[in-house]
Amino acid sequence: MRVEIWTDINCPFCYIGKSRFEQALDAFPHKDQVEVVHRSFELDPGLAKGETGSVVTKIAQKYGISEAQAAANERGLKEQAATLGLPYLSEGRDYGNSFDLHRLLHLAKEKGVQDAVVDALYRGNFAEEGSVFGDEERVVRLVVEAGLDESDVRAVLGDPSAYADAVRADEREAAELGAGGVPFFVLDRAYGVSGAQPAEVFTQALQQAWGDRAPLTVVDGGDACGPDGCAVPRT
Amino acid sequence: MRVEIWTDINCPFCYIGKSRFEQALDAFPHKDQVEVVHRSFELDPGLAKGETGSVVTKIAQKYGISEAQAAANERGLKEQAATLGLPYLSEGRDYGNSFDLHRLLHLAKEKGVQDAVVDALYRGNFAEEGSVFGDEERVVRLVVEAGLDESDVRAVLGDPSAYADAVRADEREAAELGAGGVPFFVLDRAYGVSGAQPAEVFTQALQQAWGDRAPLTVVDGGDACGPDGCAVPRT
Repeated sequence: MRVEIWTDINCPFCYIGKSRFEQALDAFPHKDQVEVVHRSFELDPGLAKGETGSVVTKIAQKYGISEAQAAANERGLKEQAATLGLPYLSEGRDYGNSFDLHRLLHLAKEKGVQDAVVDALYRGNFAEEGSVFGDEERVVRLVVEAGLDESDVRAVLGDPSAYADAVRADEREAAELGAGGVPFFVLDRAYGVSGAQPAEVFTQALQQAWGDRAPLTVVDGGDACGPDGCAVPRT
Repeated sequence: MRVEIWTDINCPFCYIGKSRFEQALDAFPHKDQVEVVHRSFELDPGLAKGETGSVVTKIAQKYGISEAQAAANERGLKEQAATLGLPYLSEGRDYGNSFDLHRLLHLAKEKGVQDAVVDALYRGNFAEEGSVFGDEERVVRLVVEAGLDESDVRAVLGDPSAYADAVRADEREAAELGAGGVPFFVLDRAYGVSGAQPAEVFTQALQQAWGDRAPLTVVDGGDACGPDGCAVPRT
């Protein structure tokens, strides 16, 4: 079974939602037959590379609330995270263009360390001092600690076209699947879960998708080769 | 829609089957929404790396037929290929361990040139003089012409662990899906086509899998972030 999670490193509910999903997955009896893939969704693709700012200030402006109210919202997220044992730094978080981070997530997928790199970038953005949007050297350190080769990381960051098409393709697919926001979880392309739902919702979705796994309907009988040889005329 | 094709470069019916599938795909009205992925299946994983020999001699021994009869079988394959416009060299083909070729197919998948590399290796094995099992420099030339970077190719060939797990994972999945031989086509993990069937069979399978594409059943309502912001308390 395959679970695809559309996500953005900017997105606190993606950080929280991943943890809730993992609670459900850890208790799922067929966990070892579930493949998880993280897919790209930029919340704000219009930001210039390197453009960053305070999340609290931005939220206050966007919703016409005071910075104190926006800061209280961040503390609310910290409390939600704490119920899951997730560290959350409620002050000083910044936002920024996440395109390069998504390109690194595609590199990490190829190298088999995607989940660890997602976690490292979430931690770097939500749980530790410092920026993942304005401090490229910090990003390099984080993802190398998570298992990527430094030379690969620098090659991707130095070539803006590397995995750019893969990021765009993920975003097109999200739109086709009707995902207007993230996190967006898709199970075997049959069931979707939108948002950071309670773990029980993910448990139900996993059970439902698992139960619906139909055996393949196979059209048999074509000429084929196998361990015992190809279909050859016998004497 | 996703079509996975388990295949081996050693397998003439994979070469022929791919062409028949492509006839069907080319005429399929939703072709541009079909993603094709080639997956690994070694017909003879027990062969040592670099161990090669004449296919005709091997077939003769395996089936207890004369070399003349085995050679006639190769000419029969040439005739089948000719009906599809596929070149086939009916004499002198060798067999060998295909593990390194499969590792290169995984590299090619990551680089977005997998289909061209599959075609290049088939051509190199079935349609041109020379070996793809005993002549690594020739393999490098073929796959570089098909779009891979030479340095990437040499790095993978020089590191036996590169993509080895990916090849093994494909083979495990083939077994789980019940594929005892190749080519084995899987459409959206719902329909399977075993062997080099006529193009009409692939057309039917494409139509059936397309018709069965259900819209996602989405559990909505979780906290999420979108282009217009995250779920934050309004004043």
